[in-house]
Amino acid sequence: MTESIESLMARRDRVLGPGASLFYSTPVHLVRGDGVWLYDGDGRRYLDMYNNVPVVGHCNPRVVEAMTRQASTHTTHSRYLDGMILDYAERLVALHADPIERVIFACSGTEANEIAMQMARVVTGGTGFICTDATYHGTSLLVRSLTDAPRRGRPDVHAIPFPQRYRPLVEGVSDDELVDAYLAEVQAAIDDFAAEGVRLAGIILCSLLANEGLPDVPPGALRKITDLVRAAGGMVIMDEVQSGYCRSGQWWGYDVMDVVPDITTMGKPMGNGLPLAACAGRADLVEAYRMRTRYFNTFAGTPLQAAVGMAVIDEIESRGLAAQATDVGAYLHAEIDTIVADVPCVGDVRSVGLFLGIEWVHDRAGKAPDAAGAVAMADRLKDGGILVSNAGAFNNVLKIRPPLVFERQHADHFLDVFRDAVREL
Amino acid sequence: MTESIESLMARRDRVLGPGASLFYSTPVHLVRGDGVWLYDGDGRRYLDMYNNVPVVGHCNPRVVEAMTRQASTHTTHSRYLDGMILDYAERLVALHADPIERVIFACSGTEANEIAMQMARVVTGGTGFICTDATYHGTSLLVRSLTDAPRRGRPDVHAIPFPQRYRPLVEGVSDDELVDAYLAEVQAAIDDFAAEGVRLAGIILCSLLANEGLPDVPPGALRKITDLVRAAGGMVIMDEVQSGYCRSGQWWGYDVMDVVPDITTMGKPMGNGLPLAACAGRADLVEAYRMRTRYFNTFAGTPLQAAVGMAVIDEIESRGLAAQATDVGAYLHAEIDTIVADVPCVGDVRSVGLFLGIEWVHDRAGKAPDAAGAVAMADRLKDGGILVSNAGAFNNVLKIRPPLVFERQHADHFLDVFRDAVREL
Repeated sequence: MTESIESLMARRDRVLGPGASLFYSTPVHLVRGDGVWLYDGDGRRYLDMYNNVPVVGHCNPRVVEAMTRQASTHTTHSRYLDGMILDYAERLVALHADPIERVIFACSGTEANEIAMQMARVVTGGTGFICTDATYHGTSLLVRSLTDAPRRGRPDVHAIPFPQRYRPLVEGVSDDELVDAYLAEVQAAIDDFAAEGVRLAGIILCSLLANEGLPDVPPGALRKITDLVRAAGGMVIMDEVQSGYCRSGQWWGYDVMDVVPDITTMGKPMGNGLPLAACAGRADLVEAYRMRTRYFNTFAGTPLQAAVGMAVIDEIESRGLAAQATDVGAYLHAEIDTIVADVPCVGDVRSVGLFLGIEWVHDRAGKAPDAAGAVAMADRLKDGGILVSNAGAFNNVLKIRPPLVFERQHADHFLDVFRDAVREL
Repeated sequence: MTESIESLMARRDRVLGPGASLFYSTPVHLVRGDGVWLYDGDGRRYLDMYNNVPVVGHCNPRVVEAMTRQASTHTTHSRYLDGMILDYAERLVALHADPIERVIFACSGTEANEIAMQMARVVTGGTGFICTDATYHGTSLLVRSLTDAPRRGRPDVHAIPFPQRYRPLVEGVSDDELVDAYLAEVQAAIDDFAAEGVRLAGIILCSLLANEGLPDVPPGALRKITDLVRAAGGMVIMDEVQSGYCRSGQWWGYDVMDVVPDITTMGKPMGNGLPLAACAGRADLVEAYRMRTRYFNTFAGTPLQAAVGMAVIDEIESRGLAAQATDVGAYLHAEIDTIVADVPCVGDVRSVGLFLGIEWVHDRAGKAPDAAGAVAMADRLKDGGILVSNAGAFNNVLKIRPPLVFERQHADHFLDVFRDAVREL
């Protein structure tokens, strides 16, 4: 006999406290996972199209085997020498753009972004950060200062409107002119810091602007924005927690955006469920940060993280998951386009690799965001056995980000359910 | 053929960067663990008397089994319902003092202390924290602001001298008068904040003052200090990352110190090597924090953490490790006292449960700290197959904090090696 949803929710409020957020109007009680599938307490099956943590599939046998083997053999912390963490660090760094040469391990995306921001502060002597106005990079006080930051009004943070073509900053202009409009916002932020006597530390961007709603970024925008910040003396931090690990069909979202970071951060998929994150950067920056702070993390840079992290990379490479992400993502995008062609409440469909966003609006011409519509669709899909969620500046974007082991056959299953759900609108 | 220490250190500098700290003049390369034993690449055995993370022993079979089973079955994040995390949360809260009713999971001690400090800020509306002048609670910018804080000079932080009888704030007074002297320092910090227009958020203390060097705290000092802060409107945060989990022979260090916290944090031993930490607190405080911040942590509060965390508590309870810690710790302390009775460079031997500190000085009367002597002894013990390290305000305290599965037979092995090492001084 499975415990009821009501009982679980009451216990949860009592011991975790009200305010611990849950997905869906009626939450799901999950008890089993296998590849792209999740199962609830009643044996009902769900196709997971939301979770990027189990990047190589729920309960991946190769990852579980590596975890078990290492946990049975040895794990301590990084103040003893260990060859495995060096093998893993070298392999991780080799996957990055050339200037990225050194890595610091951590346990969460928040910790990785803390390190990145502290590193930028140490090496520039500045405290001023530029981010977008609909972003999220983590929960510590420093990193949280970026969450949904306004244009002005927070010390040490100036937000810029995130670059996009769907709701552009300026209507009816060319892409180049649009990029110039966003660049003017970046310059204004730089000028504001200068006027306030705040030295610039850098810019931090999710390479695919995932929380912003995976916008259709004007070509070259991120490259030009980050070049401008670098020219003003700031560090370029690219957050790959969501956009990295072949999500885009390339290893890093910054590759897609033609940006070369000074510092980059990684998290969610790295350990396929084991807490594992990292901040990597130019050799001089990492060295300056380490010497200044003597950073140490008891749980990070361990043999356990190394063994599991290595198994995840092995799976991605040996199974060709980057190419599969590109193929399946493009297929999904094209099929969704066909399904929603005449659906007035779908304003836009966007994708990069196996990361898709479907933007819900009250009508196509007005583009007024319809968060309730997107939330209702996520609920409806959940009832149909498909797990997705919502994101975006207005929470009106259906966020589709399945494990990378998601194949065309799974896409077809989703498309059948989605087609029916859309018909019922 | 095992890779050489030199080769490992060169690779480490290259890919992790200089500044990533290591223990011992010649570091140890560990490859295998079993209970209280660790083995290096050449098959050499070391008795682990430092690591509190593998609290129920390196590679504990029950913990590995729980990890493997859960990783093979299911793990996602806390936005889906899960009964296991509720079972674990309820069990954890039940181990705490009555006012502690709700828990927030995290991945590291730093994250737990971030939550605690943010919670104190949210519920008091204040930003001012009191800590000791030789403390460490973590690496985020907020938490790092406490590290080795001076009496004044940092915004939002005032440090007090940590309470002790070995190098007391005032010489030649009774315990009660000594406590009053420390209380006057706390009152001065409170007054300083008031004078500066900074509202008090609270006090944060490691219950056993581990980084301070496990001092001999005058009876009642922590209780009276925290009462004073609470009376001034501040929250009492007790950090149990090192002092909790039966280290003291009781579940929490605050039990030993007769303090009841408003907020408490846990970390290192919780997952026996799996990243797992938590902040627990009064129901109203946790609720206020959750509602304000909507805290979420992808890797925390998962079925994997729950399964492993539960196995660790099972092991501690079913094997009676709290009582064993008391017994073996007292035995070790008494035997060490005998060995060092005539050794002028040992100024003091202190213990709480299975946590011991041996203070190295240039001579007993002068008490001048001898960090070099303590570091040399840790190196010498390492060469003798015993792993310990150094701590304390002057880094002159030999820190002995073995896994709780450490038995009298292991203590005897240590005492043989220690006796020889002391003879050679």
